Amino acid sequence: MMSSLLKDYISKQQANLNVALTTYLEHATIPITLKKSMLYSIQAGGKRIRPILMMASCEAFGGQAEAVMPLAIALEMVHTYSLIHDDLPAMDDDEFRRGQPTNHIKFGEATAILAGDALLTLSFQVISEAEQLTADQKTYAIARLSQTAGATGMVGGQSLDLLAEGQEISLEQLEEIHHLKTGQLLIYAMEMGAFIAGASSANIEVIKKCARASGLVFQIQDDILDINGDQAKIGKDLGSDIERDKSTYPKLLGLNGAIEQKNHYVQLAKQALLTAKINQTVLAQLIDYLSNRDN
Amino acid sequence: MMSSLLKDYISKQQANLNVALTTYLEHATIPITLKKSMLYSIQAGGKRIRPILMMASCEAFGGQAEAVMPLAIALEMVHTYSLIHDDLPAMDDDEFRRGQPTNHIKFGEATAILAGDALLTLSFQVISEAEQLTADQKTYAIARLSQTAGATGMVGGQSLDLLAEGQEISLEQLEEIHHLKTGQLLIYAMEMGAFIAGASSANIEVIKKCARASGLVFQIQDDILDINGDQAKIGKDLGSDIERDKSTYPKLLGLNGAIEQKNHYVQLAKQALLTAKINQTVLAQLIDYLSNRDN
Repeated sequence: MMSSLLKDYISKQQANLNVALTTYLEHATIPITLKKSMLYSIQAGGKRIRPILMMASCEAFGGQAEAVMPLAIALEMVHTYSLIHDDLPAMDDDEFRRGQPTNHIKFGEATAILAGDALLTLSFQVISEAEQLTADQKTYAIARLSQTAGATGMVGGQSLDLLAEGQEISLEQLEEIHHLKTGQLLIYAMEMGAFIAGASSANIEVIKKCARASGLVFQIQDDILDINGDQAKIGKDLGSDIERDKSTYPKLLGLNGAIEQKNHYVQLAKQALLTAKINQTVLAQLIDYLSNRDN
Repeated sequence: MMSSLLKDYISKQQANLNVALTTYLEHATIPITLKKSMLYSIQAGGKRIRPILMMASCEAFGGQAEAVMPLAIALEMVHTYSLIHDDLPAMDDDEFRRGQPTNHIKFGEATAILAGDALLTLSFQVISEAEQLTADQKTYAIARLSQTAGATGMVGGQSLDLLAEGQEISLEQLEEIHHLKTGQLLIYAMEMGAFIAGASSANIEVIKKCARASGLVFQIQDDILDINGDQAKIGKDLGSDIERDKSTYPKLLGLNGAIEQKNHYVQLAKQALLTAKINQTVLAQLIDYLSNRDN
């Protein structure tokens, strides 16, 4: 059960993010079909988990959520581009996401590829043009975004994930894939929130540890939902991991083993928060939410 | 005919760029298949026209070619990613480029999509991590790269180009497409060379005008080569514009009309160079090369 406090927090930040994302895209001079395709996926009802974690992390370290808005928008653009490209026929070949046709079903493959490319590129533009950040902050934020989103992060994880399909892999290899594919952007989220709030280097290391564990919590719950989730709530075909012969936590550990492993990482993430001696209420609740979410 | 001076200049800079690009990629911690796919396209024998124009522009304004190396590498990565994605079956569906199988033929579509995504992301990383640039220089270089490469630039032009297939469009619309699709990255090249060399704002505007005209020269020659080029020299199937019912300069103006239009832009580009009162020998020769190249 999500506390009503957390529910309100998430709703409020989702609303802020949705306004900022839509405003930014609508004011940009972009050829109309491309813009529609970009807006379609940006407005497809994403939960905005990553930018909300960034905002909560910033506040936990005494900063204002508003201060990270350009980085939060950029991060959501990167996440959205990755979904558009992941859904393509050559990749996961998904026709529905959150109950809606995926981008390439709606706009065709060529436009979907371009919309993804454009959102990725725009994410760096948003940061580089942010008036509220110093040049040093922008440079660092861009370096970390490219490291965590690119070949050494998310895209690298995606590549390993594709190669692992139909292969027997170890739990260690599975964790490495998910650390790259899902974990790195969660690290970016929480790290940048702390960085903009002016956290110490020691505390930034602690929050990265928390984020790494949170990323695995997120991913294990994803695997579990693919087996026993409610299709109506999730809005896409379930059972696709089994169909594609993908290694998952339940496959390697059994369903109960996967749940135990998830709880282990919930504890790790929360312990890290305690070490940082910060106002950790919202972050701790968000970690529970990652663990218990039903979509 | 290319002067031997220019030939030497191009060979020398190509060698420098090839070493820098390969070294950068080989030292990065990237999953092996993804890295091979990225290196394959980076090492596929590109002419490095864009980074060479950047270096020549920097030198024309009294700077050192070496000073723009991180921006030059980043630009070539962006160009390479755009070729990988353009060649995909959903886009231009090309199986050969420069006489070699295209990336998706060699590595499969999924890896090709990811290699493109990774090169695009890496381009921003290269700039953000460049030790020789100030934070302000990096921020400006990233802002301009995202503007010229993304939805408001190259990707936007690509989107317009796709929609124009099989349509009757005006010469004005054709020029707008090429200004975005090809011209913007050439503007980035020459503008950044001048910027890093410390050119005045007035001179930067002049070099952008030169670059805009040079981009159209480049594109018109591309259209002409698709009709009467030597397939062995170009290394890909010719006649593809006609096959895809694409609007081109020869189609709208006839072959002689297209050549006249190209010569008009050569003059415009060279006049701009004269206005800037710089050491313009190499740049002027490069413009002639863009106009007369046979591949």
